[in-house]
Amino acid sequence: MRTFRLTIACPDRVGIVAKVSNFLVTYNGWIHQASQHSDEHSGWFFMRHEIRADSLPFDLEGFRQAFAPIAREFSMIWQVSDSAVKKRVVLMASRESHCLADLLHRWHRKELDCDIPCVIANHDDLRSMVEWHGIPFFHVPVDPKNKQPAFEEVSRLIDEHEADCVVLARYMQILPPDLCEKYAGRVINIHHSFLPSFVGAKPYHQAALRGVKLIGATCHYVTQDLDAGPIIEQDVMRVSHRNTTEDMVRLGKDVEKMALARGLRYHLEDRVIIHDNKTVIFD
Amino acid sequence: MRTFRLTIACPDRVGIVAKVSNFLVTYNGWIHQASQHSDEHSGWFFMRHEIRADSLPFDLEGFRQAFAPIAREFSMIWQVSDSAVKKRVVLMASRESHCLADLLHRWHRKELDCDIPCVIANHDDLRSMVEWHGIPFFHVPVDPKNKQPAFEEVSRLIDEHEADCVVLARYMQILPPDLCEKYAGRVINIHHSFLPSFVGAKPYHQAALRGVKLIGATCHYVTQDLDAGPIIEQDVMRVSHRNTTEDMVRLGKDVEKMALARGLRYHLEDRVIIHDNKTVIFD
Amino acid sequence: MRTFRLTIACPDRVGIVAKVSNFLVTYNGWIHQASQHSDEHSGWFFMRHEIRADSLPFDLEGFRQAFAPIAREFSMIWQVSDSAVKKRVVLMASRESHCLADLLHRWHRKELDCDIPCVIANHDDLRSMVEWHGIPFFHVPVDPKNKQPAFEEVSRLIDEHEADCVVLARYMQILPPDLCEKYAGRVINIHHSFLPSFVGAKPYHQAALRGVKLIGATCHYVTQDLDAGPIIEQDVMRVSHRNTTEDMVRLGKDVEKMALARGLRYHLEDRVIIHDNKTVIFD
Amino acid sequence: MRTFRLTIACPDRVGIVAKVSNFLVTYNGWIHQASQHSDEHSGWFFMRHEIRADSLPFDLEGFRQAFAPIAREFSMIWQVSDSAVKKRVVLMASRESHCLADLLHRWHRKELDCDIPCVIANHDDLRSMVEWHGIPFFHVPVDPKNKQPAFEEVSRLIDEHEADCVVLARYMQILPPDLCEKYAGRVINIHHSFLPSFVGAKPYHQAALRGVKLIGATCHYVTQDLDAGPIIEQDVMRVSHRNTTEDMVRLGKDVEKMALARGLRYHLEDRVIIHDNKTVIFD
Repeated sequence: MRTFRLTIACPDRVGIVAKVSNFLVTYNGWIHQASQHSDEHSGWFFMRHEIRADSLPFDLEGFRQAFAPIAREFSMIWQVSDSAVKKRVVLMASRESHCLADLLHRWHRKELDCDIPCVIANHDDLRSMVEWHGIPFFHVPVDPKNKQPAFEEVSRLIDEHEADCVVLARYMQILPPDLCEKYAGRVINIHHSFLPSFVGAKPYHQAALRGVKLIGATCHYVTQDLDAGPIIEQDVMRVSHRNTTEDMVRLGKDVEKMALARGLRYHLEDRVIIHDNKTVIFD
Repeated sequence: MRTFRLTIACPDRVGIVAKVSNFLVTYNGWIHQASQHSDEHSGWFFMRHEIRADSLPFDLEGFRQAFAPIAREFSMIWQVSDSAVKKRVVLMASRESHCLADLLHRWHRKELDCDIPCVIANHDDLRSMVEWHGIPFFHVPVDPKNKQPAFEEVSRLIDEHEADCVVLARYMQILPPDLCEKYAGRVINIHHSFLPSFVGAKPYHQAALRGVKLIGATCHYVTQDLDAGPIIEQDVMRVSHRNTTEDMVRLGKDVEKMALARGLRYHLEDRVIIHDNKTVIFD
Repeated sequence: MRTFRLTIACPDRVGIVAKVSNFLVTYNGWIHQASQHSDEHSGWFFMRHEIRADSLPFDLEGFRQAFAPIAREFSMIWQVSDSAVKKRVVLMASRESHCLADLLHRWHRKELDCDIPCVIANHDDLRSMVEWHGIPFFHVPVDPKNKQPAFEEVSRLIDEHEADCVVLARYMQILPPDLCEKYAGRVINIHHSFLPSFVGAKPYHQAALRGVKLIGATCHYVTQDLDAGPIIEQDVMRVSHRNTTEDMVRLGKDVEKMALARGLRYHLEDRVIIHDNKTVIFD
Repeated sequence: MRTFRLTIACPDRVGIVAKVSNFLVTYNGWIHQASQHSDEHSGWFFMRHEIRADSLPFDLEGFRQAFAPIAREFSMIWQVSDSAVKKRVVLMASRESHCLADLLHRWHRKELDCDIPCVIANHDDLRSMVEWHGIPFFHVPVDPKNKQPAFEEVSRLIDEHEADCVVLARYMQILPPDLCEKYAGRVINIHHSFLPSFVGAKPYHQAALRGVKLIGATCHYVTQDLDAGPIIEQDVMRVSHRNTTEDMVRLGKDVEKMALARGLRYHLEDRVIIHDNKTVIFD
C-alpha cells in the first residue's frame, strides 16, 4: 500500500492533533497508522502519520503546499515522504562482511525498502560479494597519513549517487567533522558495544577485560562526537567466562547486524525523529 | 497527573480521529497520550487517549453524555475512566506465594495503582502475609467432590467487595463456566507455560519431558475455554539440560510474576482492548 | 588449536571421571575443555572432552582402540572426532533464502567449521546464490503426486556427497520415514514456531490467530514424528497487535536463522548428545 | 541431597582432573556435578565439584586434611563447603524496599538457601517488613558529616552475627575502604545500571539523558573502586522514548532484583570464583 508519511515535531499545546486530523479529513485522507508522543520533560510533541496515498487528491508537492500553513502556525519541524519513492542508501564497509552481507541480503529479498546505488569500501575484499548483487563497488583506500583525499572522494561519490542516507556497516574509519556536519542526521553507524560503555576502539577487548556478562551493539546517528550521537537501536547477548575475546567478536556480529538492520529499517520508514541528541522511534 | 482514559473500538473509516480530536479540542482537552491501531485483517480501528482531567470542563459523567453521540455515529464500543478512581482488584490464590507476594509488594510500594479490597484463597497458608498488608483474607476451601458452594461463596465475596477485576494469582482451581461468563473480560489468570504450549496441568513437567530450551508464562483473560482466553502478556526464560523439573518450577516463578504484574498493570491503566479473542495493548 | 572431541553417555556410577581422566593423563593428554552432566531423572551420565591433539601420542584410530576397553567397561555410547576433520554438511532449501544465505555467509567467512559439498533444493531459485559461493547446486523438483523419486534422488545425492549431516534450511518438504530412519540424528531442521506450539504448516498464521505476544523458532533433529524430534535450540522475538501475519513471517526469519545457526554450530562442534528424545548441549 | 562443594583455581597443567578425580574415587566419592574451565588468556584452571556427602567417609574437616597435599602440589587456591551448613547473609538496605522484599520473600519460601541473621538499614522505614519475617532489624543512621561511627557499628553488627556474606540491597551508601578490604569477596552489591555505563549516582537519569534503548542492572562484588568490582550477573530491559526517568526507575527495579537474586544464589551455592577482577560462574 502506497502511503504518505508525515512526521512532525513541535512545542506541545492543545489542538495539534485536531488541526492535523481535520486537515486530513478535509481531503478525505485515510489514516493507515498514526503515533504520537508528548515529551513532558522537554515540552515537545511528536507525531507520525501514514496516510493512504490513493485517498488524497494531491501528490507530495501538493501535500506540502496544503500543509505548510498549519506547520507554520504550530512552528513544526516536519517532513512528508512518499513510500513509493525509495530512499537511496550508500553503504560503506571495510573488510568485515557480516553487516554488509546482511544488509545486501535483506535488500536482495526485498525486505529493505530502499535503493543501494553503490557500496564504498576502504579495502577491495568485498567487491565480488557486492557486485554479485548488481551493485557498483568503489574502492577508496584511506592513506593513514593523509586521509583528506579519501574523504573528499567519498563525499563526491555520496553526492554523485544522490544518497539520502549513508550507512557505515563496520566502516572502521572515523568520518571527519565536515562530513558529519554535511550529512547530519543521515549517516547511520553500528558501534560494536552497548554504548555508552566501551566507546572507541576494540570494544570487545574492553568488554572481556571488564568481565561483563552481556555484550551489545548500538545503532546510532553519526555526529562529530565519537560514538555519542543519537541512539536508534541497541541490543545485547549473553556471554560468560567461557567466551574468549575472539568468541565475543564472533557472537557480537549477530547483535551488530540485527541492531543495524532494525535501526536502518526505522530510518527508511521515517519512524525516527531526532530531538536533543535522542530519538523518538515510532515502531 | 489526573487523566480521563478513553478507549474506543469501532469499524475503521475516514474521519474517526478528526471527530474525536475535534470533540476534545472543542472542550479544550489536553491530550497527554494517544495511541491508535488500524487492524487491516478485521477492518477495525482501536484508539486510546489520556486527556488531562483538569483541562476538561466536565466530570466523567459529563464526558460520557457529551461523547455519546459521536460513539453512536461510529458504532463505537467504548469506555472512559478516571485515573483518580482506583480499580478494585480481588486477588485469588492457593498455597504458592510468589505471584501474590509480588503483587502485594508492588501495591504496598504504590507501584500498582489499585485498591485490593480482599484476597480469597482455597487454603489458609497465606493469611498472615496478606493480613500484614492490612488486607482482609478469606479462606474459601473447595471441596473436590462438590465445588459449587465454594464458587458461590467466591462470587458473593467478589460482588460484596465490588471488584472491578479478579486476578487468579496461581489460584490452581478452574473457574466454573458461569463465573467465567459473569466476569467476562475482568478475570486475569497467569498460566505457567508459553501458551498455547502445555495447556492444562503441570506444564513444567510437560516442558521437561519435551526438552524445550525456553520456559514461559502467559497472562491472559479467563474464558470458558481452558487456557485459551485472550493473551495479554507472555515472557520466557532460558533453561537447559542441567535444569530439573523442580528447577523449572522455581525459575518459572520469576517469569510468572513478571508477566502477571505487567499484564495487570496494562489492565489497570486501561491499555487493553479485547477483540476477537485477541488483545490490543497500548503500552 | 586441533583437538580430539570425546563425547560419552552411559549409566551413572562412581569412577567414570577418574577412569577417563586417568586414561588421558596416562597418555599425557591435555584437556582443553571438559563438561559433564549427571541426569538424576534417568540415572545417566554425559561427558564431553576436548583434548589437544598434539598432546596425545596417537591418531583418532589409535585413540579409539586405546579407549575401547574403558567404553566397554562402563557400557558407554561414545564417539571421538578430530576437530581438523571438517564435517560434510548438505544443505537443503526451497525458495526462501534467509536461512540458506545466512549459513552460506557464515561458512564463507569461516565462522561455520564445515565443508558444504552441495546444496539440494526443490526449486531452482537459489542456484545463483549458491554457485557464487563455489558450491554445487542440485535442483530436485518434488512431484506432489509422486514424491518417492525425488526423495530417492535426494538420498542418492546425500550419499554420493558423503554427508555427515543434512540441514533442512526451510526445505518445506516433509522427509519420508525411511530417510528419517536412515539419517537418524544427522538431519537438522528449523521449524518456524516455538515448538510444541504450532506444529505443522503455516505456524505464523496460527500464531497470529492465537494472538501470542512472542513468536519463536525451533532447531531440532528430524524424526518420523513431525516437528517432534529432539530440540537443539529455540529462540523467540516479541511481537504485538501492530504486527500482521506478514510482519511475523518477516520478523521470524531473524529468529529462524539465528536458532538454526546456533544449533548447527553445536552439532558441528560435537556439543550435542541425544538421549530419550531430548538433548544435552555442552555449550 | 547433601553435598560437599569443592572449588579450585590453579595454574593450568596436565593431570589436575585426574588427580582430583582419583582422590575422589579412592574415597568412593560420588560426583553429583562437576564443571571446569581452562582460561587460555591467563593460563589458569578452574574447577567445581559437588560430591554427595554420604558417599564420602569423612566430614568437612577430614576432607580438608585429606585433600591438602594435592592442593599444595598444584598450588591451588581452593575451598570446600558443606551444603548442609547454610551461609549467614546480612542484608543491608535503605528506604527502597524492592530488592529487600524480593530477597526476604525468596528466603521465606525457602528458595534462597541461607540464614539471614539480621538486616541493617540506615533508615527505619523497612523495620516492620523485616520483623514480619522474624528477622532482627538494626537501624544504624549514617551522619553525612561523620560517617565513621555508623560504619563501625555496621562492622560490629556484621561480626557479631558472624556473617559469611553481606548484601547491599540498594543500601545507597558507599562502604569505606577499610570495610571493603575487611570483607573482600564477601560483599555483594546491586548497581542500577548496565556497568560500566553510568557509574555512580543517579544512573537512570544518566540513561534517560543519553537516550539509551535498554536499561540494566549489575550485581557485583564490592571493592574499593566504586562500581568497578568483579561482575557476577547483569541483565537489561527494553525502554523507549515513551519512558520517563521515573518509568525507568520503576522498570529498573525488576531488573535489579532479578540480577541480585541470581547473583546471590550463585554465591550461596559456591558457583563463583573470583580471579583477576573477573568471575568464573559455574551455573
